Amino acid sequence: MPDTAEKQACDLLIEAPWVLPVAPENVALADHAVAVSEGIIVAIGPSQALKQQFAAEEHVVVTDGILTPGLINAHTHAAMSLLRGCGEDLPLQSWLNERIWPLEGKLVDSEFVRTGTALGVAEMLASGTTTFSDMYFFPEVCAEVARNAGMRVQLAFPLFDGANAWSESIDDCFSKGLELHDRYRDDPQVIVAFGPHAPYTVNRKALEKIQMLSEEINLGIHIHLHENAAEVAEARSLNGVSWVEYLADMGFLSPQLQAVHMTQLTEREIELTATNGVHVIHCPHSNLKLASGLCPTTALREAGVNLAIGTDGAACNNTLDVLQEARTASLLAKHDAGRADAGCVRDTLEMATLGGARAIGMETSLGSIEPGKRADLAVFEPTGFATLPLLDPFASLLHGAPSYRASHVWVDGRAVVRSGALTNIDTQALRRDVEQQAERVRAAL
Amino acid sequence: MPDTAEKQACDLLIEAPWVLPVAPENVALADHAVAVSEGIIVAIGPSQALKQQFAAEEHVVVTDGILTPGLINAHTHAAMSLLRGCGEDLPLQSWLNERIWPLEGKLVDSEFVRTGTALGVAEMLASGTTTFSDMYFFPEVCAEVARNAGMRVQLAFPLFDGANAWSESIDDCFSKGLELHDRYRDDPQVIVAFGPHAPYTVNRKALEKIQMLSEEINLGIHIHLHENAAEVAEARSLNGVSWVEYLADMGFLSPQLQAVHMTQLTEREIELTATNGVHVIHCPHSNLKLASGLCPTTALREAGVNLAIGTDGAACNNTLDVLQEARTASLLAKHDAGRADAGCVRDTLEMATLGGARAIGMETSLGSIEPGKRADLAVFEPTGFATLPLLDPFASLLHGAPSYRASHVWVDGRAVVRSGALTNIDTQALRRDVEQQAERVRAAL
Repeated sequence: MPDTAEKQACDLLIEAPWVLPVAPENVALADHAVAVSEGIIVAIGPSQALKQQFAAEEHVVVTDGILTPGLINAHTHAAMSLLRGCGEDLPLQSWLNERIWPLEGKLVDSEFVRTGTALGVAEMLASGTTTFSDMYFFPEVCAEVARNAGMRVQLAFPLFDGANAWSESIDDCFSKGLELHDRYRDDPQVIVAFGPHAPYTVNRKALEKIQMLSEEINLGIHIHLHENAAEVAEARSLNGVSWVEYLADMGFLSPQLQAVHMTQLTEREIELTATNGVHVIHCPHSNLKLASGLCPTTALREAGVNLAIGTDGAACNNTLDVLQEARTASLLAKHDAGRADAGCVRDTLEMATLGGARAIGMETSLGSIEPGKRADLAVFEPTGFATLPLLDPFASLLHGAPSYRASHVWVDGRAVVRSGALTNIDTQALRRDVEQQAERVRAAL
Repeated sequence: MPDTAEKQACDLLIEAPWVLPVAPENVALADHAVAVSEGIIVAIGPSQALKQQFAAEEHVVVTDGILTPGLINAHTHAAMSLLRGCGEDLPLQSWLNERIWPLEGKLVDSEFVRTGTALGVAEMLASGTTTFSDMYFFPEVCAEVARNAGMRVQLAFPLFDGANAWSESIDDCFSKGLELHDRYRDDPQVIVAFGPHAPYTVNRKALEKIQMLSEEINLGIHIHLHENAAEVAEARSLNGVSWVEYLADMGFLSPQLQAVHMTQLTEREIELTATNGVHVIHCPHSNLKLASGLCPTTALREAGVNLAIGTDGAACNNTLDVLQEARTASLLAKHDAGRADAGCVRDTLEMATLGGARAIGMETSLGSIEPGKRADLAVFEPTGFATLPLLDPFASLLHGAPSYRASHVWVDGRAVVRSGALTNIDTQALRRDVEQQAERVRAAL
């Protein structure tokens, strides 16, 4: 056994009974460890070997639990956490027109967004998510909240025709969003992308501008697409083609595009999605809750499309828990494909991690536990009896999701959750702020 | 304010910020309390009033949480908890023929059932379930385990053609099962029912005998029915009619019948189910995981059918958590009906409580918080941020299920869970027993 002097220094060494690295091989590694230096994963290997190789500043020994890449929530509206439970069991059109939009009109300002985002960030970190893609008003507030909490965010800054609480016009959206891009250009914690709401709320000229700018400055585009049948039918009656076809005709489909929802796809649309390298963000709870239809994940996967998982906002979920979402994604895939071997646990964990990283263009630095990648990591600790016996760590984690809690979470190697407690968030102050905003919501209902 | 002397004595008074009684009105009651004497609910009312009315032996004040009737798991095979994760992502026929049945052939004996049932019971109590309906070999062992843990059980004793580890023949099943009925005739904690596995594994003469005996001695019948399309197609090719029609022709459909799964139903079969008062047990996770199809809960409800919720066994779920199952039932109902107002939260909570009580013929004593009913109760305490803000207690509990834990659970007014800890189960010994059986499972895989 070598002396400490001969060991390589590192900041953090995490040992766990099970490590699921997702890549390069999506396998379960027993009794493995991960070494981290300056926020970067420097090694992964058997615990015994790594303990001999490294002298770590901090040594975390997980006695019972599973270490995974931090989860990636590829689509949410974090601030809408304040509207959780405000419009239950309403049909989609009433939900939007009579509940959500009027409430947003009355309530949304920068403080609403600050508190709502903080609530969403707290929930996501505490459930093992290290990166989220957010699309909401006041994205500059979201960026601040995420950075302060030590969380990574893709800001898909909103672009809509017309005015809203955040911007006077779609031109104003462009200038505010591009200012954000400038501000966070060198910050690996904040990734900026275009967030055109949907092809039916953004005029064609603006879409063309987004497409051009996206190519020029290499920014992603995050858009709601084919969320439900009514929207597709409307496209056909307006344009003679579906929205996917409309965007394909414009040359809008590309590997920069993150298409959210994508229920209601024809074979040809699946092919267009695949050949153009479009990423699909699957939001199963939201699609079920709003009766939007199902995203054909198995057909998309077989066509070669990269898939990621999003929780959507809490008003149509009602949680931002990516692991629960992944469980439902796996179950729905089996149902939708009519095959119990579809939606397998390994593919689903990949969707919730590396798939999300690919979608936001960060697959070289996020989404798996590989040397050279950023140390965004989560430990899931079993909390009850539903994890016993542990015969298959993938299935135990995914299908036993309600019985795991994220006990330790790191972003860039910095602990954001320790023993289940959030390290950067004053949770008492957060609860007070939430209650204050909740009073506004109740008054507006 | 009256003196203690003027107050009415009771054993237990539980105050909670929210009480969801399910019946007589399925509403949310703020700041209510429930009084219990000799295992029976004696009053429900505003906390202030009940504190003045009752002098309680034990006074439980829930500062943050929701009090509901104990959940009812209307279909499981608790002992299969030991096979959790043993056959992931296999198509149904391989799952059964190549994995589950061979494993059961090698492993199942009374000790396997004792440990597996104890594991299932521990998980169910800890997640707020107070009654479960079990269908597995060695039901006499299940009865002992449940009674020792203070949990209520419906033993649907298995009836199969052919021999198995528990019985030599179907005649042997009858005699062993009826012996159980005799033994537990006066025990409100153990309800005995016939558990014919399925119409395709039980010969017609035996089904006729079950039907006759069920009427004579007033026992329920619990059966797997129309679990998937292949089974129904086989029925049509064998008998020219589906299994539901086959049983209807026999006069087997009645309010005694608990039909489990019931995916693949024609309009006529829904009508037969409704007019004959058959109860339907919906197992959404199992149906999704095995790609069996969906139970048309909205059409059944509209036809007047009583619906209950079951988790099925852990090998096809992988948890026995009724609240999670109810969440999925609500979401799937919206998808299946194509309407976001289907599967509403109140109806779904009723399915998970009073619906289950009706199915097992216990609606006069279980399933709601009403004076005169048995005090089977659960407190769900929020554990994280996904429960904030609380705008709708039904939605918060159901759709925020992963963020609630059952902190206190009572069966017949006796605490089976206190502050999240199981009162009657030696959890260390249970973990040891589970690990011992898990070694057998691993060796047999």
